[in-house]
Amino acid sequence: MHEELQQLLDCIKPASHSLSNAAQAHLDDLTKPQGSLGRLEEIALKFVLATGNLEPVLSKKKICCFAADHGVAAEGVSAYPSEVTPQMVYNMLNGGAAINVLTRHAGIDLDVVDMGVRHDFPDLAGLIKRKVRHGSANIAEGAAMSEADALQALLCGAELATEAYESGYHILGTGEMGIANTSSATALYAVLLDVPVESITGRGTGIDDERLSHKISVIKRALEVNASRFSTPFSALAALGGFEIAAITGFILGAAALRVPVVVDGFISSAAAVVALKLCQTVDDFLFFSHLSHEKGHREVMQKLGAKPILDLDLRLGEGTGAAIAMQLIDGSVKIYNKMATFSSARVSEKSED
Amino acid sequence: MHEELQQLLDCIKPASHSLSNAAQAHLDDLTKPQGSLGRLEEIALKFVLATGNLEPVLSKKKICCFAADHGVAAEGVSAYPSEVTPQMVYNMLNGGAAINVLTRHAGIDLDVVDMGVRHDFPDLAGLIKRKVRHGSANIAEGAAMSEADALQALLCGAELATEAYESGYHILGTGEMGIANTSSATALYAVLLDVPVESITGRGTGIDDERLSHKISVIKRALEVNASRFSTPFSALAALGGFEIAAITGFILGAAALRVPVVVDGFISSAAAVVALKLCQTVDDFLFFSHLSHEKGHREVMQKLGAKPILDLDLRLGEGTGAAIAMQLIDGSVKIYNKMATFSSARVSEKSED
Repeated sequence: MHEELQQLLDCIKPASHSLSNAAQAHLDDLTKPQGSLGRLEEIALKFVLATGNLEPVLSKKKICCFAADHGVAAEGVSAYPSEVTPQMVYNMLNGGAAINVLTRHAGIDLDVVDMGVRHDFPDLAGLIKRKVRHGSANIAEGAAMSEADALQALLCGAELATEAYESGYHILGTGEMGIANTSSATALYAVLLDVPVESITGRGTGIDDERLSHKISVIKRALEVNASRFSTPFSALAALGGFEIAAITGFILGAAALRVPVVVDGFISSAAAVVALKLCQTVDDFLFFSHLSHEKGHREVMQKLGAKPILDLDLRLGEGTGAAIAMQLIDGSVKIYNKMATFSSARVSEKSED
Repeated sequence: MHEELQQLLDCIKPASHSLSNAAQAHLDDLTKPQGSLGRLEEIALKFVLATGNLEPVLSKKKICCFAADHGVAAEGVSAYPSEVTPQMVYNMLNGGAAINVLTRHAGIDLDVVDMGVRHDFPDLAGLIKRKVRHGSANIAEGAAMSEADALQALLCGAELATEAYESGYHILGTGEMGIANTSSATALYAVLLDVPVESITGRGTGIDDERLSHKISVIKRALEVNASRFSTPFSALAALGGFEIAAITGFILGAAALRVPVVVDGFISSAAAVVALKLCQTVDDFLFFSHLSHEKGHREVMQKLGAKPILDLDLRLGEGTGAAIAMQLIDGSVKIYNKMATFSSARVSEKSED
């Protein structure tokens, strides 16, 4: 294991499970039948344990949207050309993308991070420039990234999580933009979760049946070509991932090390979460899977992880859109914990004995 | 049919389905793969057609929480005593209930309406006093309400929807508070949707197995005792419902008549929605079912209606809590429609031909 990665993993400690009884007792004392707010109560409880604070604070919220290009786009696995990656970055910087609308709606700050777009951006407000390379290499022909480059991207993600923590953010969310990145994510799932490529390869931005078959064959080729590179989750990430996926992995690990809850967006972000979980299962204490993606395969992946995404809205856009909506709901859940009256304070009669 | 009810129903006209192509074309021109925002796009489209405005406006939002007591509580069908109904009304007026927290979180105004609580409230800020009676009668022994009283409650609900419309609200949500009202709602479903009582009777606020069997037998008795009163959806409402359920029915009808979209909360509110739909199927054009309740039976009811609730969060509290969360998401969906950049304006390349 690379020393810096090991140091990061060593910082990740379990959530404060010892607070569970006290937090649950508080939830049960709120003026509602016990458990009647269902998942909102589960979410509030998880947030309390993750942050280790029986009086949880959730006001400052941020989503980082990591962008990178993928060499595998040259295989024709996406419905959109690679130039859409920088175009959409500009769209985000101009405030016109879906993630801009939803983060503004939910009071979430947004950073856009260039991890490896095949385009040189000028200095622009809202853009964090951390480009490792102009796109990853074609996974159908070899490794996406050298391990050194993948490590650089991962540590950059962790550093951004640390900066957000130091700026007072209480929750972080992941997002991504990168034409062809469902192919990378699918290849990672196949290796790390041992699921057949066919069963989890989907239409991404919207490809037809013929191109879907082609995409499956490209991903299978990537698995063959890189077969010698799957000895660790990190080496698999370098071989099959991309700069944005590596950065999200680090972002998750960095947040977990600082006990900052992380809201995982959809199909791509979940692949980074799987890498993070395979590197350190304890990360799970800090993760909220925001939504079940419409992208084929995500349901099987969530089942394999035993994860229950908060929302099921047939989203398949990425960018962090699902994370934004779920973060708003997590915010509401923490407010339920903090702001509701208790039975005694409100003089409401409790449940009678059955 | 009562003349005033018929007049109300006559005002309900279908949504502007003729705008469907134009609205869909706009959604498809936004900078995202077509359909990739899934249900958010469906919701925005429905809102546009309901309001008949290709430039939809959604800023002012209100939930009305209707409260009433139920004579059937005397049968011991609930885990909580009837005095909890007024106690929870006071809790809401003091801002300590779950619905207060969630409406504040989502920027929604809240009105609490006494339709038939067995308690005399003083004049209090935020309380709308429209009491018809001090609780409905015990449905296990006869009709819950006279038809005249039920009509008064229904028309009061419609009037409140009209007042909200005139005050500039763009969307309305339903909520309720009333110990034992799951029994009334279940009885209504059994009659109006022809489903067996056993399959849809749930634990409400949290009763044990023994009390659940008892609740089932009480509901069956209510259906027998009132069997002669089910000739119309309205007469069934009067026989089995309650003052808050009748008011919600009218609130939904009144909103639909004015083309104001209505967000339906959970198990109880859905029973009022079923009455409204049975009176006038066109109402469906204006309804958003907010969430799939944890209360047993709601899933079957939604399936019978062909409805797809927006959220599935195991909520079973009522009050309008599910409506509040869904309304926030509907707000976000309409913002997506209004605020995203188009492909041409953002100079983003469109999908290539497959």
